[in-house]
Amino acid sequence: MRWTQYFISTLRETPQEAEISSHKLMLRGSFIQKLSSGLYTYQPLGLRVLKKIKAIIREEMANKNAIELLMPILQPKTIWEESGRYAQMGALMMRTFDRNENEFILGPTHEEIITDFVRKRINSYKQLPKNFYQIQNKFRDEVRPRFGLMRAKEFIMKDGYSFDLDEQGADKNYRDMYDAYVNIFSRCGLKIKIVEADTGVMGGNVSHEFMATADSGEDKILECSQCNYAANAELAERIPQAKEYQESLKAITEIHTPEMKKVEDVANFLKTAPDRLIKTLIYLTPEEPIAVLVRGDIDINENKLKKNLKQQELTLADEKTIQNVTGGPVGFSGPVGLKNIKIIADTSIEKMLNSITGSNKNDYHLINVNLDRDFKVDKFFDLGEAQAGDICKKCQAPLQETRGIEVGQVFKLGTKYAQALSATILDENGKEKTMIMGCYGIGISRTAQAVVEQNNDENGIIWPMSIAPFTVVVLPLNTKKPEIIEKAEKIYQELKNNNLDVILDDRHERAGIKFKDSDLIGFPIRIVIGEKNLQEGLIEVSLRKTMEKELIKEEDLLNKVKELIQTEQ
Amino acid sequence: MRWTQYFISTLRETPQEAEISSHKLMLRGSFIQKLSSGLYTYQPLGLRVLKKIKAIIREEMANKNAIELLMPILQPKTIWEESGRYAQMGALMMRTFDRNENEFILGPTHEEIITDFVRKRINSYKQLPKNFYQIQNKFRDEVRPRFGLMRAKEFIMKDGYSFDLDEQGADKNYRDMYDAYVNIFSRCGLKIKIVEADTGVMGGNVSHEFMATADSGEDKILECSQCNYAANAELAERIPQAKEYQESLKAITEIHTPEMKKVEDVANFLKTAPDRLIKTLIYLTPEEPIAVLVRGDIDINENKLKKNLKQQELTLADEKTIQNVTGGPVGFSGPVGLKNIKIIADTSIEKMLNSITGSNKNDYHLINVNLDRDFKVDKFFDLGEAQAGDICKKCQAPLQETRGIEVGQVFKLGTKYAQALSATILDENGKEKTMIMGCYGIGISRTAQAVVEQNNDENGIIWPMSIAPFTVVVLPLNTKKPEIIEKAEKIYQELKNNNLDVILDDRHERAGIKFKDSDLIGFPIRIVIGEKNLQEGLIEVSLRKTMEKELIKEEDLLNKVKELIQTEQ
Repeated sequence: MRWTQYFISTLRETPQEAEISSHKLMLRGSFIQKLSSGLYTYQPLGLRVLKKIKAIIREEMANKNAIELLMPILQPKTIWEESGRYAQMGALMMRTFDRNENEFILGPTHEEIITDFVRKRINSYKQLPKNFYQIQNKFRDEVRPRFGLMRAKEFIMKDGYSFDLDEQGADKNYRDMYDAYVNIFSRCGLKIKIVEADTGVMGGNVSHEFMATADSGEDKILECSQCNYAANAELAERIPQAKEYQESLKAITEIHTPEMKKVEDVANFLKTAPDRLIKTLIYLTPEEPIAVLVRGDIDINENKLKKNLKQQELTLADEKTIQNVTGGPVGFSGPVGLKNIKIIADTSIEKMLNSITGSNKNDYHLINVNLDRDFKVDKFFDLGEAQAGDICKKCQAPLQETRGIEVGQVFKLGTKYAQALSATILDENGKEKTMIMGCYGIGISRTAQAVVEQNNDENGIIWPMSIAPFTVVVLPLNTKKPEIIEKAEKIYQELKNNNLDVILDDRHERAGIKFKDSDLIGFPIRIVIGEKNLQEGLIEVSLRKTMEKELIKEEDLLNKVKELIQTEQ
Repeated sequence: MRWTQYFISTLRETPQEAEISSHKLMLRGSFIQKLSSGLYTYQPLGLRVLKKIKAIIREEMANKNAIELLMPILQPKTIWEESGRYAQMGALMMRTFDRNENEFILGPTHEEIITDFVRKRINSYKQLPKNFYQIQNKFRDEVRPRFGLMRAKEFIMKDGYSFDLDEQGADKNYRDMYDAYVNIFSRCGLKIKIVEADTGVMGGNVSHEFMATADSGEDKILECSQCNYAANAELAERIPQAKEYQESLKAITEIHTPEMKKVEDVANFLKTAPDRLIKTLIYLTPEEPIAVLVRGDIDINENKLKKNLKQQELTLADEKTIQNVTGGPVGFSGPVGLKNIKIIADTSIEKMLNSITGSNKNDYHLINVNLDRDFKVDKFFDLGEAQAGDICKKCQAPLQETRGIEVGQVFKLGTKYAQALSATILDENGKEKTMIMGCYGIGISRTAQAVVEQNNDENGIIWPMSIAPFTVVVLPLNTKKPEIIEKAEKIYQELKNNNLDVILDDRHERAGIKFKDSDLIGFPIRIVIGEKNLQEGLIEVSLRKTMEKELIKEEDLLNKVKELIQTEQ
């Protein structure tokens, strides 16, 4: 490709919208362009990266005999009602209506559609096992679209679905996809942690997430310092470090705590630690408000709360409801004296003594509050968000916290969808059987950005060779000198003829601008053709990753480039 | 590919939904599967065809330096308001709302989005000319989705947009794309007629459509029997063959015509020809009803009607309105005595004498009705749908009618979008200029089906080699004989190693089933490995197109296959 015949529009300034490095660099390097909140155009360079990721995915899928097809984006509401997920998905789904008032979902995922396809086209055990996948646009009405491609309204996914006659086959497909995903992310140059994950609205009983490690990641991961246990904080079971209390029960007392609504403020004021407080949160379920207690230093994991309460929708109560329920304002709730409301609690408060709580009265807290003596709890659950220092459920060593970007997830779905949609087949004995499914997803657009988040420096992006928009840039320093541009053309043609993915920066621009663009965009290999070196028959080759330059004889150039590519891959 | 590891699910029966051959064959051959009205899943075979068409498009685009990017499907309503097209597009657009009640269009086309992209990223004449394209899903809320991929709610398009500094550049881009489209359709094996076309809601002043000729085509084409004039009937200007009247005006008379609401019925009853009648149609514009007159043997072209009335929306009036406006029932309207309504007419009635019209009274018509004496016309236009026998506007020879499937269209847009969205650049002299645009579209999914519509016989599809799902099928007759299956495997591997696109039918099925499937799916080249021939070292090779079989020595097979491919391409 010749730069002047292509379209690259790098920016010197970072657009205000961008918060994290990868988002800034993809805008500046002209990989993406914002259309509106959560909607991005893939510029030509960005699309090249996506295509390379897709090609890797297709190769790894073919290695496991997964078969590509393509399903519609529009999905009739009726089939989501059949699976029972229409109500579950709630506000995350985008919808549209046709002129006859039929409702359609803009596919966020395709379990229903593939199951419908399979029930129409597969009816014999002879047709199994099958593992289908597609690469398609997906839609989610995010509460807060942000971080560029990380959390967008419209994004590109590879989603796959396996169908098996028995558990053994389903397990093999799950393992195959797990292995393929390990290969895919590794080939894309991503550092990945694989963690146990919640199955959420997908259903099923086993799931793993593929997390690209990154400080800016939206997901919190807990991993054991000793064994191989690692899980998404959404799911991670926690054994809080036991606090030893050796006190006698003291008399409950009211304390003036003016305007102290936060745990930290109250703890500081009373010269104690947050773990001596009990937080009281009022949640709203569709039926009723509910009070939830947790130790002051622990966060409620709303995912666990929903599961234990068997609720899809759960929100923190508004000020007015809190006033009605507790009699006091926000920030001063406590369990003592609460009436006509169910009280549930995290196991962390079971052994607390002489705790501090809100008083349900403005500007007052209670000290020396004790379970059973001063208040009752209807039921205890594990409701706390796991955190560093909690104890591993497998080996009792302390857990550590890291953060990650979820780029892939695999699920054992069992018969959830096949049963709901009556996707059955006849087995060898002519007996009707329900198919066993798995589903497997990779966020392709998010993967592209996750690679940038892991691979950049102050000058720009450092693409792995496998998915760089171009592997090599040929950079003539002075395009007005005929011998320079002729040599550059010759080298460009030679590399192209050897099937190397190369761009020739044939712009009449100053060297400084060309170097800056090349570093910002992040071409892995740079070949610089300068007057002085050329007089000695030398060409400068450098790697973006190390920034190390080397002078090579012109006749050795092609082999050098090939060697650099082989070394990385 | 091995058949047993792939997914092919041919059907013996034609699903009821299918009307035209290509739709039937794509369902039966397992290329597509209906999800719901106008929504189809591309089965693995269908997706392979699409990919081959896409690859041809990408090659031809690269030859013309067109640059690929990818824009979002969701398009903010606000930008369609900016271009002024939000109201124009009307009910064909599908819409969705996000959780903040922002409205989005599901992109039916991307002029607004690309213009927004370009105004954000292009500001200097140095960056022009540019010609961008994408391959993306498109959406249209069709009144009547039908014919499979021909008229679907969701479909796949290549859409391209050129940006130029001046008319000369814009003309070059238009010509480049026109030429590229000729190549693309020819390489896909489609027979195409290129016709002058209406620009419709796209705007601009010049447009050509690429029509795949087919009796089942939804578009009517008028072409000259002598010169090279050809146009879509939507656009075709007509000079109706002049009728010679040499009569004196007779006295208007009421005739009893019981239950005769149709032109043909009245003409038969009165023993005359339809061209002696004047049809009176009542249309509704958003403001008022309007009466439209046309000669009895001519159809109104609603496209022309809308243009002349400068209306976006126009519908035939309902029974009640007709009763209110004319005083009579549907089927008996006439211009005589019509009050408080504008009357416009097609030029075909200008010279008519002693005509027959409705009487605005149930079961009666009037004869000997004459313009000016009996009724007045507010304005005459060319409103009639052109038809065979009309006279060519270029050379006066008679026009002929054919039908076609619109698979591509190119438009000179001028500055319509760039002006509305202020997409300006600075020229060489630092002066602000509005960019000049063109747009270019190919219906990819529709092209796939159009190829089938043109290439099939009673046994199935006859794919051109260029876009067949597989070029070659290797068909061992008896897979239980080791020497047969071993030979088939060997041939399959040899062809694969030579980069031929081959599928091995390794099923343990009867020969009849295998032959039927192979004919139905339409693999261009079939290699049959049978016991008897093999004993003589011979392999049977046949072409789907001619059904001619030839026995080839095993050692000559590879060359024979290569030769067959080269001959077609």
